[in-house]
Amino acid sequence: MFESAALGRTCDDKEYAETMQSLRMRLFEAQRQCLARKIPVLVTIAGLSGAGRGAVVNLLSEWMDSKHIHNDAFWMETDEERLRPPLWRYWRKLPAAGEIGVFLGGWYGPAVRLHCCGELTDSDFLSRLHRVRGLEASLADSGMAIVKLWLHLDKATYDLRHQHRLAHKEDYHFTPYDKKTAGNYDGLVASITTAITQTDRPQAPWTIVDAADANYRNLSVAQAIIAGMERAMAAQDAKAARVKQEKDGAASTVQEGLISTLDAIDLGISQEPQHYRKTLAALQEELYGLTYHAYQKGISSTLIFEGWDAAGKGGVIRRLTAGVDARITRVIPISAPSDEELAHHYLWRFWRHIPRAGFLTIYDRSWYGRVLVERVEELTPREDWSRAYAEINHFEEQLTENGNILLKFWLHISPEEQLRRFREREETPWKQYKITSEDWRNREKRDAYVPAADEMFLRTSTSYAPWHVIAAENKKYARLAVLRCYRDALRAALDRSAEKKPAGSKKKQRKGK
Amino acid sequence: MFESAALGRTCDDKEYAETMQSLRMRLFEAQRQCLARKIPVLVTIAGLSGAGRGAVVNLLSEWMDSKHIHNDAFWMETDEERLRPPLWRYWRKLPAAGEIGVFLGGWYGPAVRLHCCGELTDSDFLSRLHRVRGLEASLADSGMAIVKLWLHLDKATYDLRHQHRLAHKEDYHFTPYDKKTAGNYDGLVASITTAITQTDRPQAPWTIVDAADANYRNLSVAQAIIAGMERAMAAQDAKAARVKQEKDGAASTVQEGLISTLDAIDLGISQEPQHYRKTLAALQEELYGLTYHAYQKGISSTLIFEGWDAAGKGGVIRRLTAGVDARITRVIPISAPSDEELAHHYLWRFWRHIPRAGFLTIYDRSWYGRVLVERVEELTPREDWSRAYAEINHFEEQLTENGNILLKFWLHISPEEQLRRFREREETPWKQYKITSEDWRNREKRDAYVPAADEMFLRTSTSYAPWHVIAAENKKYARLAVLRCYRDALRAALDRSAEKKPAGSKKKQRKGK
Repeated sequence: MFESAALGRTCDDKEYAETMQSLRMRLFEAQRQCLARKIPVLVTIAGLSGAGRGAVVNLLSEWMDSKHIHNDAFWMETDEERLRPPLWRYWRKLPAAGEIGVFLGGWYGPAVRLHCCGELTDSDFLSRLHRVRGLEASLADSGMAIVKLWLHLDKATYDLRHQHRLAHKEDYHFTPYDKKTAGNYDGLVASITTAITQTDRPQAPWTIVDAADANYRNLSVAQAIIAGMERAMAAQDAKAARVKQEKDGAASTVQEGLISTLDAIDLGISQEPQHYRKTLAALQEELYGLTYHAYQKGISSTLIFEGWDAAGKGGVIRRLTAGVDARITRVIPISAPSDEELAHHYLWRFWRHIPRAGFLTIYDRSWYGRVLVERVEELTPREDWSRAYAEINHFEEQLTENGNILLKFWLHISPEEQLRRFREREETPWKQYKITSEDWRNREKRDAYVPAADEMFLRTSTSYAPWHVIAAENKKYARLAVLRCYRDALRAALDRSAEKKPAGSKKKQRKGK
Repeated sequence: MFESAALGRTCDDKEYAETMQSLRMRLFEAQRQCLARKIPVLVTIAGLSGAGRGAVVNLLSEWMDSKHIHNDAFWMETDEERLRPPLWRYWRKLPAAGEIGVFLGGWYGPAVRLHCCGELTDSDFLSRLHRVRGLEASLADSGMAIVKLWLHLDKATYDLRHQHRLAHKEDYHFTPYDKKTAGNYDGLVASITTAITQTDRPQAPWTIVDAADANYRNLSVAQAIIAGMERAMAAQDAKAARVKQEKDGAASTVQEGLISTLDAIDLGISQEPQHYRKTLAALQEELYGLTYHAYQKGISSTLIFEGWDAAGKGGVIRRLTAGVDARITRVIPISAPSDEELAHHYLWRFWRHIPRAGFLTIYDRSWYGRVLVERVEELTPREDWSRAYAEINHFEEQLTENGNILLKFWLHISPEEQLRRFREREETPWKQYKITSEDWRNREKRDAYVPAADEMFLRTSTSYAPWHVIAAENKKYARLAVLRCYRDALRAALDRSAEKKPAGSKKKQRKGK
């Protein structure tokens, strides 16, 4: 793979000065355009030590407007990072629209060095790369320019520089792995070869840079970045054309005559549950203990609530929070995004809220807005929301790893019951704020929401995060149903976690022998 | 202090239902007004265990629009928190304009419990409280409504409930300190008495709530919150009146004939430094090693750059970053705030960027914008920017604790040199973006900036963070001066940190005896 990067190509200073002059202008112009077009740019700079990663980072700030560039390095995870899905640390540093994020090592650095040291098995390494590939695809699809650079040195040059640094005591290591891998050229190259093979895709290609000669290296880097930004601009244009075409030829998205999943819900369950107060109190008391144990075991819960306006989401959520210690619970209502959130991938705002292990997070509306309101109100082009199903599944898969709980509730009521509740809200002084003209508008669009909800159930009911459609015509019934469902999920998760324990104690015994 | 909270007052259910109905309406209306007036509300709920802190938190979400309420609990610090100034963890959770932040325990919870357990000395406890008092004053001054509740129980009631929980195995502890303090009623009460005495101030008063009777407790809580929100609204009105009055009677803020600090700067130092390239390279090499060692010792550096447009800030910063490993460096250009940033105290955006211990952060423009551009352009009322000097000193004091470095540079050039550089920028293709109509406008306001800069030097040159005014008429001279200044500061900080070591080893010896 690296043969062409070891040809020892060079560029003399005079030629460099001339070529660089025009490349700089092009780089700068490309940055200006990305800023105007609100395209975020992610530049990953990975490479062998001594290949000049730091020098390249500094050059980028010199070549372009450094006010819109920020650098981030990733090495040892902090405990806040360790207690969340592994990609969380990268999500929170992703560049916003128009900004250039320079990731030193990026999501490759730690994985490659851990694998090279033998602290990451081949299969774990591959699964990380698989995940990264998915993330890059999703980011590129959302319009991000992705440039990935590997600064390479042939073995002889590498050894020479390594010896020189050792002799001059200039060997600076930021992680224990830097030191361990420094002497293992072949191992590092083998690991990065795997990483490149697994993640080299048209939307997020690798550029292998022959870094032995600094001038030649710098030219290659500049060219790769220009190419990446231009690729993203071309993709943006192509997409705009597709979206325009789709709009011109758009038919009504409301399909008549289809039978909805929701039709199958028996809304007749409307008799008053017996002993409601007592049952509720008992469930809450049980939940208090179960969530506390889940907290101690580091099992997170994410509960999301979707459904018709006035279906009783708020009421259910209040019964839930009343049953759980407020210190480990967080309710996140989802409304219009802030400008910082709008400047990122639509999942960014949800990633930033992910709590540490053990907490309960309740979403009042959620990331499903992408395929519900954004679809129905045509706020988002079809190709974006239709891609969201897979992105959401991928996201939820990460939320549910390590035995974490994710429950998705759709609270279902009939149009008649909704009308009754709207009227009641209008008449009760402290409920008036809950009813706005938007609610009435949404009500009129019910026919458009039904197929959107149907497709959502179909495409995002996964084995690890199925939908629970709750008949909410009777509020009390719905509340008990949700609390029971969560209780059962907690019990099951705690049982699974208890089953795992014996394996741990076995290990100890083995050590004891 | 708690005598009045132990009178055993109660409220029967009928009276409660009636009173609560009207209180609820008032609460809800106060929230609505705070939202409209963009007033953030901070409610601290502290209290003895068993006093119903969790129940109160849940009630708040029921009484008001829970979409604008978020709860946060603070207990064991994470390592990300431990490696930053102690108040960072609270800053990042502060409510935005119009939002209600409910802090369980808030900044009091951990301090009170640590002090009660004897893990925080009296003097450390007092110094924490002193700092918290300053923070609350600053937040209240910026318009935040601050409500602090202590839910109290008399000893007999407390013991009864504690025994009951033990008997029912309902003793849930989220930190080791919860458990340690649970049996020590007198100790807890002594610690909280100190905390309340030290931090009970008109703008951020404590309300001690007799929590033995749940109804009475709830009424007291609701009343205290209404009072806090109304206090903040009254303060907002009073301020608006003051600001209007000031504007009506405003004279020109440009004072003529004053001699500026800047006049004393010898801009004649403009001869080319000898061996510039060689000296620069040597300084950079030295900085590389020093910053690496500072990183290893956890000594952070913050360098901020202010000065006239085109004074060469960018050039100096590039020479700095070229001399430091990019992985431990972050350049933060400060321009217009985002809407999330605007919805918070003006220092919030700087708090959120504070890196972990050991890093170098370079600010291209900084929090001094508050007393420079915001003052000169009259973006901020006088009473706000004039208060900022003290707030900034307080902030910088926290940045420089534990031997951390903070250097503040003002790059100074003459108006003639500035004009020459503006012209040059206009003529150089890749520098054109650096010159905008705003730069020309700022240039015309130089006479207004000079007294603002003077007052800034006067009021914020502290022993721990003095200003360095650098003659920048000659760029090379300025670059070397800044790098030397940083090198000297690093050397001194590392020396101080090395001196501390022997004390540590002594302690070990003592243990050994």
